[in-house]
Amino acid sequence: MSDNRKELRYARSGSDNDRMEALPQAVRQTSVTATETSCIAATPQPPYYAVIFTSIRRNDNSNKSDYSITADRMMELASRADGFLGVESVRDESKLGITVSYWRDLESIRVWKHNSEHLVAQEKGQREWYSAYTTRICKVERDYSHLF
Amino acid sequence: MSDNRKELRYARSGSDNDRMEALPQAVRQTSVTATETSCIAATPQPPYYAVIFTSIRRNDNSNKSDYSITADRMMELASRADGFLGVESVRDESKLGITVSYWRDLESIRVWKHNSEHLVAQEKGQREWYSAYTTRICKVERDYSHLF
Repeated sequence: MSDNRKELRYARSGSDNDRMEALPQAVRQTSVTATETSCIAATPQPPYYAVIFTSIRRNDNSNKSDYSITADRMMELASRADGFLGVESVRDESKLGITVSYWRDLESIRVWKHNSEHLVAQEKGQREWYSAYTTRICKVERDYSHLF
Repeated sequence: MSDNRKELRYARSGSDNDRMEALPQAVRQTSVTATETSCIAATPQPPYYAVIFTSIRRNDNSNKSDYSITADRMMELASRADGFLGVESVRDESKLGITVSYWRDLESIRVWKHNSEHLVAQEKGQREWYSAYTTRICKVERDYSHLF
């Protein structure tokens, strides 16, 4: 993903989306710097789709760097996939993680799920990295944002 | 929320939901202990709703305990609200947080959003605690889980 595309995706407007629904997408996404919003995805107006991936890492840390490298690679690959709109990801010290990726439609989610490198990562996740996970495919019907 | 209800909500089956769609809800939710799954919500079969709340805390830590007390109180209140199905929440050291709460329908989300104590907390969140946040209301159309 180019720097420019990244900036467009992660910057957000400073106003409540409820009051901005008539504004063009470019205005919604470029009116603030990315400083405070680099971790909040700048998604388009709904409807669009979200994949909520909630996972618990195993206690075994032997493959920590392998995990990190793969996680970074998956982020890079996903960000180049057709229909990708953005991602938000957090993991805390207790090993619980939530990653939400945003997509244009169900077809782009389906294609990403079956990407060959992603399939290998999913298999390693099941075998090595996670003790439990849940994936939920959702249609985002409404959103609103605040920047202060 | 009673201990028994909490256990039902947070325990999950050990198999892929794709293969369990014909099983009754009680079987889906009680076939494992909550040890590994206490942070992953045991939601019913789709469709149901998710509220994805992604937020960035301010750098100012002066009201940290007030924030924690309010966050705990909101969790307690939400868990007793009609239509509440579960919650998953993570915040990392960089101050990014993702909280996903699950609900039976849009009406239960609407009622919770307008709960009087919750309205006060939302107002304090805007004024004191967050530098940015986005809330997304989603319909969960499909989910699948793994426990290893």
